[in-house]
Amino acid sequence: MTGIIFNPDPEKTGDFMYCLMKELYPICRSITGDGVRKTLTIIKKHVPLNIVEVHSGTQVFDWKIPKEWNIKDAYIKNLSGERIVDFNKSNLHVLNYSIPVNKKISFEELRSHLYALPDYPDWIPYLSSYYQENWGFCITQNQLQNMNDQYYDVCIDSNLKSGFLTYGEFFIQGELNEEILFSCYLCHPSVCNDSLSGVVLLTYLAHELNTIKPKYSYRFLFIPETIGAISWLCLNENCLKNIKFGLVVTCVGDNGISTYQKTKQGDNLIDKIVEKVLIDSGKDFNLRNFNPSGSDERQYSSPGINLQMGSLMRTPYGDYPEYHTSADNLELVDSNSLADSFKKYLDVIYIVENNGIYLNLNPKCEPQLGRRGLYDMIGGRRELLFDKEGLFWVLNFSDGTYSLLDIAIRSGMKFSDIKLTADILLEHGLLRKVL
Amino acid sequence: MTGIIFNPDPEKTGDFMYCLMKELYPICRSITGDGVRKTLTIIKKHVPLNIVEVHSGTQVFDWKIPKEWNIKDAYIKNLSGERIVDFNKSNLHVLNYSIPVNKKISFEELRSHLYALPDYPDWIPYLSSYYQENWGFCITQNQLQNMNDQYYDVCIDSNLKSGFLTYGEFFIQGELNEEILFSCYLCHPSVCNDSLSGVVLLTYLAHELNTIKPKYSYRFLFIPETIGAISWLCLNENCLKNIKFGLVVTCVGDNGISTYQKTKQGDNLIDKIVEKVLIDSGKDFNLRNFNPSGSDERQYSSPGINLQMGSLMRTPYGDYPEYHTSADNLELVDSNSLADSFKKYLDVIYIVENNGIYLNLNPKCEPQLGRRGLYDMIGGRRELLFDKEGLFWVLNFSDGTYSLLDIAIRSGMKFSDIKLTADILLEHGLLRKVL
Amino acid sequence: MTGIIFNPDPEKTGDFMYCLMKELYPICRSITGDGVRKTLTIIKKHVPLNIVEVHSGTQVFDWKIPKEWNIKDAYIKNLSGERIVDFNKSNLHVLNYSIPVNKKISFEELRSHLYALPDYPDWIPYLSSYYQENWGFCITQNQLQNMNDQYYDVCIDSNLKSGFLTYGEFFIQGELNEEILFSCYLCHPSVCNDSLSGVVLLTYLAHELNTIKPKYSYRFLFIPETIGAISWLCLNENCLKNIKFGLVVTCVGDNGISTYQKTKQGDNLIDKIVEKVLIDSGKDFNLRNFNPSGSDERQYSSPGINLQMGSLMRTPYGDYPEYHTSADNLELVDSNSLADSFKKYLDVIYIVENNGIYLNLNPKCEPQLGRRGLYDMIGGRRELLFDKEGLFWVLNFSDGTYSLLDIAIRSGMKFSDIKLTADILLEHGLLRKVL
Repeated sequence: MTGIIFNPDPEKTGDFMYCLMKELYPICRSITGDGVRKTLTIIKKHVPLNIVEVHSGTQVFDWKIPKEWNIKDAYIKNLSGERIVDFNKSNLHVLNYSIPVNKKISFEELRSHLYALPDYPDWIPYLSSYYQENWGFCITQNQLQNMNDQYYDVCIDSNLKSGFLTYGEFFIQGELNEEILFSCYLCHPSVCNDSLSGVVLLTYLAHELNTIKPKYSYRFLFIPETIGAISWLCLNENCLKNIKFGLVVTCVGDNGISTYQKTKQGDNLIDKIVEKVLIDSGKDFNLRNFNPSGSDERQYSSPGINLQMGSLMRTPYGDYPEYHTSADNLELVDSNSLADSFKKYLDVIYIVENNGIYLNLNPKCEPQLGRRGLYDMIGGRRELLFDKEGLFWVLNFSDGTYSLLDIAIRSGMKFSDIKLTADILLEHGLLRKVL
Repeated sequence: MTGIIFNPDPEKTGDFMYCLMKELYPICRSITGDGVRKTLTIIKKHVPLNIVEVHSGTQVFDWKIPKEWNIKDAYIKNLSGERIVDFNKSNLHVLNYSIPVNKKISFEELRSHLYALPDYPDWIPYLSSYYQENWGFCITQNQLQNMNDQYYDVCIDSNLKSGFLTYGEFFIQGELNEEILFSCYLCHPSVCNDSLSGVVLLTYLAHELNTIKPKYSYRFLFIPETIGAISWLCLNENCLKNIKFGLVVTCVGDNGISTYQKTKQGDNLIDKIVEKVLIDSGKDFNLRNFNPSGSDERQYSSPGINLQMGSLMRTPYGDYPEYHTSADNLELVDSNSLADSFKKYLDVIYIVENNGIYLNLNPKCEPQLGRRGLYDMIGGRRELLFDKEGLFWVLNFSDGTYSLLDIAIRSGMKFSDIKLTADILLEHGLLRKVL
Repeated sequence: MTGIIFNPDPEKTGDFMYCLMKELYPICRSITGDGVRKTLTIIKKHVPLNIVEVHSGTQVFDWKIPKEWNIKDAYIKNLSGERIVDFNKSNLHVLNYSIPVNKKISFEELRSHLYALPDYPDWIPYLSSYYQENWGFCITQNQLQNMNDQYYDVCIDSNLKSGFLTYGEFFIQGELNEEILFSCYLCHPSVCNDSLSGVVLLTYLAHELNTIKPKYSYRFLFIPETIGAISWLCLNENCLKNIKFGLVVTCVGDNGISTYQKTKQGDNLIDKIVEKVLIDSGKDFNLRNFNPSGSDERQYSSPGINLQMGSLMRTPYGDYPEYHTSADNLELVDSNSLADSFKKYLDVIYIVENNGIYLNLNPKCEPQLGRRGLYDMIGGRRELLFDKEGLFWVLNFSDGTYSLLDIAIRSGMKFSDIKLTADILLEHGLLRKVL
C-alpha cells in the first residue's frame, strides 16, 4: 500500500455504515445464539468472514463457554390480557440470557425481576445475566409506574441449551507476517453506538483493505465481548507473537469529539500513531490512559497476553448517559460521525503502512536543492512553501534514527506531507529507505 | 504488621501528645546539659529509651563535642534592683550557651549583648552561640525600649564544663534487619512547634509501634540538632547500611497544611509513599525539594553518608513568623493538628509494612470473578463498587513489576483499598506474593 | 581564564559595536566579491583574522563555489533621463548577484524584474539570485506605483567572473585543544540586525578574548551564509572533532528580548549554559527548538557534520517585519541592545571556562564552618547571607557527579555566586577540583 492513499467519498462511506447499522439494529444479539449468526451472515455479504463456532462447555483459560441462548418472544400481560411489555417492541425488554418463564405471578413477586431507570423515565436499561441463571424484564420507569394490577402473566420464550459461541474473523495477508489487530464486539442487542458502531466501521474497513495488498497483515475480529475475546485468545495463542499492536473499535458513531484510550504502556508506536492522526485531523480530541475495567483491551492487555491495544472512540462508553439503554439508538449516531471515525482509522493505517526510516545520502551539509529544482531560485524572503520546509526536516533528521513519524511529530507537520516530501527526495536520489 | 491497621482514637492521641508537650515545654534545653537529660527521662516513661552520653572533646567527624552547658538563673536588674529581664519567666531570655557573667555594666556596653525583634515587639527571639564563647540576653522590643537606666546588673549563673552530650535512641527489631529511621531534635528550650512537636510525635509513635512485631526494624533518635546527628552518625557508621530510608520529624503541631520535603534524589520509595499518604488523606498539601540548609537531613544526606531522608512537616521552619521566638508556644500548636500529623506518620508506616509485589496466578485474560462471588451477577450497567474496580487494577498490573503502591498510584485508588483488594484475591488463590 | 570575569564598560562596548556597524553598513556585500573583502579588511583592524579565498568552481560537498560577483553601479532611468531607482542610494535596489544588463525596455518587460512589498510601501526588499542567472531591481511599492512611463533605461554594471569566495577566520589556542565555535555571516548588503549585528558582536568578542589565555580554544568564523559554512566545513573536516559546541550569532542588535534557539538535541551542555545565563540575567527571554530551516546551524547540525550548535539572538530572523528589507537599518539596532547581547555572550564564556566538578573533602556530615570563619556565630535565626546558602549547596552536591553549573541550576542561585562559593571552599581546603 506504500504511496496509496484511500480517499473514499465521506458521504458514501457514512451512508454505507449507517445503512448497515439500520439493518443490524433490530436483531436480538447476545454472547451466543442465532442473533450473532444472523449478524455475521449480513457482514459476510461485504467481507469474506471466517465464521467459527466454539462448543458450549469448552474451557477457555479460566472460563467455560456457556450454554447457547435463543429467544422467540417475551411479554408481560396485565389482567386485561394486554401486552404491557413486549419483546417485539424492543429486545432490550428482556434481561439478556433470561431463562424461560411462563406463569401468572403477583406484582410483588414480579417486582424483583423488573429493572428500570428512575432518572430517565422513558429509557429501557440494557442488562444481562450471562453466568447466573435468572430472568427479568427491563422496562421504562413510566411503564413501571403504570403497573397497578395485582397479578401479571409473564412469558419468556427463550431456551438455554448446549450449543455454540459464534464469532467471525477476517485476515488479510500482507507482505509481512507482522499483523495489526482490529477488534469489535457484536454481543449487544439493539444498541447502536456502543458495540454496533464498531461492527459497521470494521466491516467497511475490512472491505476496503481487502481491495489492496498491504505491507502489514491485518486481522479483524467480530466477537462477543469478554468471553469472545477470551475464546479467540485461547484458541489462537500461537498467533499472538505476530501481532504488532491493535485497536478495540467501539463508540465511533456519536457526534462527540474523538477520544483515544492509550495502551497499557502508553507510549507504544500505536499510541504515537493515533495521537498524530488526531493532531493532524485539526479537530479537538481527548486522550485517556489505559483502564483495566474497559472493554476487550482488558483481555488483550492482561499480563499473560500483553498485546499493545489502544482504543480509538468518540465519546467513551460510560461517559454518555444513553450508554446501555434504549436511547443508544439510531438517532444517537449519524453517518457524518461514522465517516469521520472511519477516516481516522484509515489515517492510522496510512501511517502504519507508510512510516519508515530513511537515510540522507548527502549527509554533510545540505544538498543543493536549487540545482535539482527543489527550491525557489529567488532567495531572501523566507516565504517557503510548506513542502520546502519539510525538505529540510526530512534531510536533517534522516540519520537512521528518526522515522518519518518522528520527523512529522517533531516538525509539527502532517505525516502525509512528510511522507510526500520523503518520496520526492527519494526520487531525486537524496534519500535511501533503510527500514 | 501485615494486615494490621493502627486506628488510634484521634482525640486520645492528640491529647497524649499535647499533654506531653506541656510537660516538656518549660524545661531549658540546649545541645548538652541537664535539660536534655530531664527531657529524655520524661520520654523514657513512655518508651524504653537507650540514653547515650558522649564525652566533651570527643571528635565526631569534623566536629568536637563541646563543653556541657548548664544554667541555674539569669537576670538583668535595673538600678532599683528590679529584675527587668528574668530567666525564670522565659528560658529564651538567655542567649543559649551563654558563659557566666555577673557584673554591673553600662547600658552602652550591655546593648551589644541584647537581642530583640523590632517587627514583633512582644516576642522574645531564640538565639544561641554554641561554638563561640559569648553571653547575651534575648528580650522583647518593648523591654528594650523601656531600658532607660545608665547602668544595669547583669547575671548569668551558667557553667560550661567538660561533661557530655546526651541523646536518646530506641530501636525496634522487626522481622527484617532493614530499618526505617525517624529522627527528631530536642535541643531547643521553650519552643513548641519547631523541635518539641517532633519529640512528642515520635515518643507516641515509638510507644505504639513497640506494641507490635513489625516487618521492618524501626529506629527513633531523640538528639540535639546538627551536633547530635553528627555524633550519632559518627558513632554508628556501621548501622547505616541497614537504613532503607527515613524522615526528620519537626513542625508537626501547627494548624497549617502538611508539607513534605523530598529526599535529595526526590524520587525514592519514601518520597512516593509520603506523597501517596498525602494524596490519600484528601487534604491539601505542599511538596518541596530537598534543601541543604534545612534540619538534620543536611547531615543524613551529606555526600559521605547519603541516606534517603525526607521530612514530613506541617508549616516548615522559617515559613511561619513565630519560628525561633517565644511565640512558637503552646498556643501555636494544637492536639488536632498533632493527631492529624500522627495519623499521616502511621499511614506512612502502613504502606512501608504492607507494600509488596504480587503475581497474578491467572495471567491470561481475566479470571472469571463472578464464579468466585467477586462480581455482581447482573452485568451491563457499570455501577461497580469501588473495590471491584480495584480487582481489575490489581489483576491487570500484578505481573511481577508493579508493587501495590505503584498500582494505587496509577489507579488513583487509596493504597489501603488496593491492599484490601490484594488480600481478597490472595484468599481466592488468584494472587501470589513475590516480594 | 579561571576566576577572571570580563566586566567591560557597557557604554564603551555598545558604542564600539555600533560604530563598527555604521562603518560596515554601506558596503555592498554578497556571498562573494569585494564587499566581503572590504568588510574583512575593516574587521582585521581589530582582530588578526586569517582571510581565506576559495576558487570559483571548487567542489564543496554537494555544492560548487559560484563565480565571483562584483558591481559598480545600477539604475533605472525614466524617459526624462532621471534615475528613479539608484544603486548609490541603496545597494538593496539590485537583486543581489544580478547579471549585467544595459538596455531600454518596455515597462511591461521590466515589470517581471521588479520586486516590491505592497504591505510596506516605503521599504525596499532584500532579495538575491545566487544560483540562477537573473537580474532585477528591488524597489519600494511607492516607486513602483509612480512608474508611468512606457519605456525605461535599465543598467546593472555588475560582473560575474571566475574568482573567489572569501571568508575570515580567527582562532585562539587555549590550554585545551577542545574548542568553542562562534559563527556569523557577512554576506548581506545594507541590513543591520540580521547578519551585521552578529559580525560586530563577534569582532568585539574575538578582540576581547584575544587579550587572555583561556582554558578552551575559541574559533570565530566570518563567512557568507550557507555556501560559506559549507565551504568552511568541507575544507576543515579534520577540525570538527575538536569542536565541543558553538553558537551562530545573528539578530543581536534589536531591542527585543533574548531568544535562544536550542541545539538539535536540545539538552546539550551549551543549552544548559545559555539557559542559565538567560535566567541569571533576570530579564525575560524566549527559548525555541532547533529548526532545520534557520541559519548556518542547518549545515553545522546536518547529520554528517553533527555539531552541537545553538543560536543566541534577540528577535529571531523572520519574527520581525523589517527582516530582509531596507528597514533593518541603523535605527532598528541600538548600542544598549548590542551591549546587552555582548554581556550574555561573555557570561556564556564565563560558564564555559569556569564550570567544573569538585569533590567535598569532608563528605561525612557538614564540616564545621564556624570554626573556619565561614558561618555567623550567633545561630538560630536563619538569616543566612546569600553566599552562606551557597556553601551548603556546594558542599552537599559536590560528590563528583554534579558540576557547579548543575548546582547553580538546582539551587536557583547565580552561577557566578556558586563559583565564588566553590573558590572560597577550595581556599579553605574543603573542596578539591576533579574535572
